[in-house]
Amino acid sequence: MYKLVLVRHGQSEWNELNLFTGWTDVDLTERGVREAKEAGRSLKAAGFNFRYSFTSLLTRAIKTNNFILEEMGLLWIPDEKRWQLNEKHYGNLQGMNKTEMVEKFGADQVQLWRRSYDVRPPAIPEDDPRHPNHDPRYQGIEDEAAHPGTEALLDTVNRIVPLWQNDITAKLKEYKEVLVTAHGNSLRGIIKYLKNISDQDIISLNLPTGIPYIFELDENFNVLKDYFLADEETLKKLMDEVANQTKK
Amino acid sequence: MYKLVLVRHGQSEWNELNLFTGWTDVDLTERGVREAKEAGRSLKAAGFNFRYSFTSLLTRAIKTNNFILEEMGLLWIPDEKRWQLNEKHYGNLQGMNKTEMVEKFGADQVQLWRRSYDVRPPAIPEDDPRHPNHDPRYQGIEDEAAHPGTEALLDTVNRIVPLWQNDITAKLKEYKEVLVTAHGNSLRGIIKYLKNISDQDIISLNLPTGIPYIFELDENFNVLKDYFLADEETLKKLMDEVANQTKK
Repeated sequence: MYKLVLVRHGQSEWNELNLFTGWTDVDLTERGVREAKEAGRSLKAAGFNFRYSFTSLLTRAIKTNNFILEEMGLLWIPDEKRWQLNEKHYGNLQGMNKTEMVEKFGADQVQLWRRSYDVRPPAIPEDDPRHPNHDPRYQGIEDEAAHPGTEALLDTVNRIVPLWQNDITAKLKEYKEVLVTAHGNSLRGIIKYLKNISDQDIISLNLPTGIPYIFELDENFNVLKDYFLADEETLKKLMDEVANQTKK
Repeated sequence: MYKLVLVRHGQSEWNELNLFTGWTDVDLTERGVREAKEAGRSLKAAGFNFRYSFTSLLTRAIKTNNFILEEMGLLWIPDEKRWQLNEKHYGNLQGMNKTEMVEKFGADQVQLWRRSYDVRPPAIPEDDPRHPNHDPRYQGIEDEAAHPGTEALLDTVNRIVPLWQNDITAKLKEYKEVLVTAHGNSLRGIIKYLKNISDQDIISLNLPTGIPYIFELDENFNVLKDYFLADEETLKKLMDEVANQTKK
């Protein structure tokens, strides 16, 4: 009935440097660009034919979305950019090296910040220039959740679910096939909701960058089938890479 | 009160080959990419701060718009893609070499097709695969004008003016500064309307590629001031280039 495709943006400069990124607006690496184009080529080869796309307000997701659409000959479809699709805000950890953090706070604390459902990292204070209140892209958005100093995954899920329920489903009804290009944790929120995954289990779901995750949905948006558009070997390698980011 | 910025897309593959392009969806050349990025840098240096952008349904304009926004750190603003901003449809001349056409039909006839206000080139028949009716981007658009086999500049002006009156002015009211990245003839339509240029005189207005054309408007959208964001020498060189395209 409906096809929803989720893509996590290609490798970013801070993925490569192993830094907590969150709402920091970093660019794609060359590898990230290649991953994005490859995602577009594989979606085209598999016969996907989007008529609408969503992405976040962050450059790395917008560019990934554009590269995918360009490879598919679909740069002319709408790309709706929404803050709710942004990565989880990592608070004061943004810009810190993941390995150093482990040395400083211990693997357990870092794992808790990265992967617990409801524990928030230390917040960026409102007078810090890095706080979203100083960024023009969030000005004029009334929702308090668009101006966080930090977020737990719980907060990210709470802002993404209404976007799914109100906006993405509406476009699926109209256009049948919709592409959503976003970030590890905002996509986790959608997947958690669609597959009814527990707060505990969603933590260990590691999405590889640039691999399309396909959902076939019935008319009530129940999942009929879900799969990654990649061979098993590629997939395992990429998922292990994400899971091992904090190991030395 | 309001700032409207018009940019004609950077050099395309068919500009370079000197072919009539129209609604054919060709890519930018490397020079075209450089022109687009340079437009973004000069707009940023001049302090422009768009909150909304419009572009056409054609790749060369969409990519130019994206390169401009990326250079300005504004990739996150909306980019509304509208068929009304497409280039003039050149009918059956699309894909033909401008110099060859001059040899075949004479400079006067070609000049008439290219630059007369109300003479349409020979139409592409509806069963030709190049006709817009076979292109998914125009499916579902009810307006007959979105499915032309050919157009005179008159037709292009007639489709662009309502977009200006209804949509672009609405976004100017809301966002104050708006970027419109499009094509030689669709931008001519807007300029003709804004500056009340006669049918005869609009023909000889040659817009250079990738040079921002700034309009400062009062609250009723009357033009207070208009200028290109480039030094006089660059400007003259580029305008001569466009005017001389059919000369050998």
